[in-house]
Amino acid sequence: MLLATLVAVAFLSAPLIPTSTLAEAPSTADPLPSWNDGAAKQAILDFVKATVDQSSRDYVPPEDRIATFDQDGTTWVSHPLYGQALFALDRLAEMAPKHPEWKDTEPFKSVLDGDHAAIAKFTEKDWFEIVAVTHAGMSSTDFAAIVADWLPKSSNPVFKRPVTELVYQPMIEVMHYLRANGFRTYIVTGGGQDFVRVYSLQVYGIPPEQVIGSSIVTKYEMADGKPVLMRDPKLFFNDDFDGKAIGINLFIGKRPQIAFGNSDGDKEMLQWATGGDRPGLGLLVLHDDAERELAYGPASGLPDTSVGTFSQALMDTANESGWTVISMKNDWKTIFAGGIKKAE
Amino acid sequence: MLLATLVAVAFLSAPLIPTSTLAEAPSTADPLPSWNDGAAKQAILDFVKATVDQSSRDYVPPEDRIATFDQDGTTWVSHPLYGQALFALDRLAEMAPKHPEWKDTEPFKSVLDGDHAAIAKFTEKDWFEIVAVTHAGMSSTDFAAIVADWLPKSSNPVFKRPVTELVYQPMIEVMHYLRANGFRTYIVTGGGQDFVRVYSLQVYGIPPEQVIGSSIVTKYEMADGKPVLMRDPKLFFNDDFDGKAIGINLFIGKRPQIAFGNSDGDKEMLQWATGGDRPGLGLLVLHDDAERELAYGPASGLPDTSVGTFSQALMDTANESGWTVISMKNDWKTIFAGGIKKAE
Repeated sequence: MLLATLVAVAFLSAPLIPTSTLAEAPSTADPLPSWNDGAAKQAILDFVKATVDQSSRDYVPPEDRIATFDQDGTTWVSHPLYGQALFALDRLAEMAPKHPEWKDTEPFKSVLDGDHAAIAKFTEKDWFEIVAVTHAGMSSTDFAAIVADWLPKSSNPVFKRPVTELVYQPMIEVMHYLRANGFRTYIVTGGGQDFVRVYSLQVYGIPPEQVIGSSIVTKYEMADGKPVLMRDPKLFFNDDFDGKAIGINLFIGKRPQIAFGNSDGDKEMLQWATGGDRPGLGLLVLHDDAERELAYGPASGLPDTSVGTFSQALMDTANESGWTVISMKNDWKTIFAGGIKKAE
Repeated sequence: MLLATLVAVAFLSAPLIPTSTLAEAPSTADPLPSWNDGAAKQAILDFVKATVDQSSRDYVPPEDRIATFDQDGTTWVSHPLYGQALFALDRLAEMAPKHPEWKDTEPFKSVLDGDHAAIAKFTEKDWFEIVAVTHAGMSSTDFAAIVADWLPKSSNPVFKRPVTELVYQPMIEVMHYLRANGFRTYIVTGGGQDFVRVYSLQVYGIPPEQVIGSSIVTKYEMADGKPVLMRDPKLFFNDDFDGKAIGINLFIGKRPQIAFGNSDGDKEMLQWATGGDRPGLGLLVLHDDAERELAYGPASGLPDTSVGTFSQALMDTANESGWTVISMKNDWKTIFAGGIKKAE
């Protein structure tokens, strides 16, 4: 998936734009003011009402109320590049002066040269080398500091804003609404667990222990008499597709009742949430708003993409399974807090 | 570790003793009434006071207050066999009628024959086969039901009581006290995560998502149109020794301030809790009460054991690191709720 994104945009300027404070859901009778009235909004309201009503057949005790959210394309912008891919590229450029050998070593040379044609032919091994040097070889503490330092300097190429500003206000409202009704909200991402944990509390109000993601191996070592966890360039857990159901069971040990996704990698999470003994609500965000955000599918005849693919097969499964498809164009009154628009 | 325990006791009667309700800490000015006044009790009280006092240099905000507890030998009895080893043996005996081939197949034959000499020579591979047939090959839901069914029928050979009755009342009080002071309490066990999660809420007041343990691989499958997670006989994560620090970081992403253990496998967890920027409190339970419970070490000249070894090296590390050693004999006024005593 990094492949297509890197082809699209090779090098990014990283202007220092401070991360703005995210707007809180306003105090109003409507808990979801950024949603237009419609089937998606009503499905959420009805499901939560039934879940918390002790006289309802579908009542769920508070300790079991779990809602899971995919991140890329579900709670924040993931086009033309995943936020974490932006990080990997920026980091590679930042590290390059201390690695003069990269000028003559693939795959780094092609990246540093901005050689789109070569990048387009990168193998899995090439990509793994890029992730290895940017995400491993340091302690967990140092990695978190590197990410925290990068976030306010980050810039999405379409919006020219830091990645942490490009969260969907309707989803922030849903998180608030669910928590107000006793749900615990989790991020369940194919992205890096340790990457997302750096900003999850600030951006989503979700603490690190409620972020489940992909992870690499860490090694316990003593450094100057202090224990550290060193990040190894080996995949430990791939929290995508079936890994999302497996990860939810591994980390929580309970099934969610509500799950939000947007792409083929979220299918199993939604099946897991909606396929148990209790009723479950599965929702998929469809990026069909080319004007305010982006339009891609290829479900519903939208342009094809390899970044956050919403295939026609997933749409078919959604229809068969009674999942709710959220149209960004029709269901969302507001997309970003603060009236953020695409850069021209 | 299963080796030594199986040699000690081969087959156990499993009388139907109902699991009694655990006593709650009585409402009193003393939050730790089962503890004798002394250094260990005072260390806990002082540390918690400093942690929650906003004017203290050692103040920790509530969202960061984490306490971790090893289970076997720290919160419940682990001699002469780990609770989960009792389960594996009982389960093997229960499954045997449907596996007539086991009568002639090692390692099952030796177990079913009660052949202690042969069992004593079991290889790692033999032990793995026993775990494979008793802990894998079923769905996660079915495994939880099997464990839940077994628990009230379980019987520790020394106390002739179900394993869930043999929890240390002083530790239950500490858990209550910590939670009352804003800490989240976690079990961090070398035992099976999915095993402990079955009873953790009932026994410790700790929900499944706060149980970190060893785990096997699970596979996502569809069965009759419903998703299931099938348990595979392959180790996924070994939550012991360095794995305890790694597991804490993986599952919580925050360092504990307080960690309780009792054996060599807990060293890294205590280092992780006490080796960060903030002050940390590490505590180790020493089983030195042969009369009321059991006495083993070999630290402090107590009898050697391969089940929950507290080595002299660990004692040396504890002393160098300023960790608190809890003497069951001297520090604990009460060991079990309900006056449970050894069977004669």
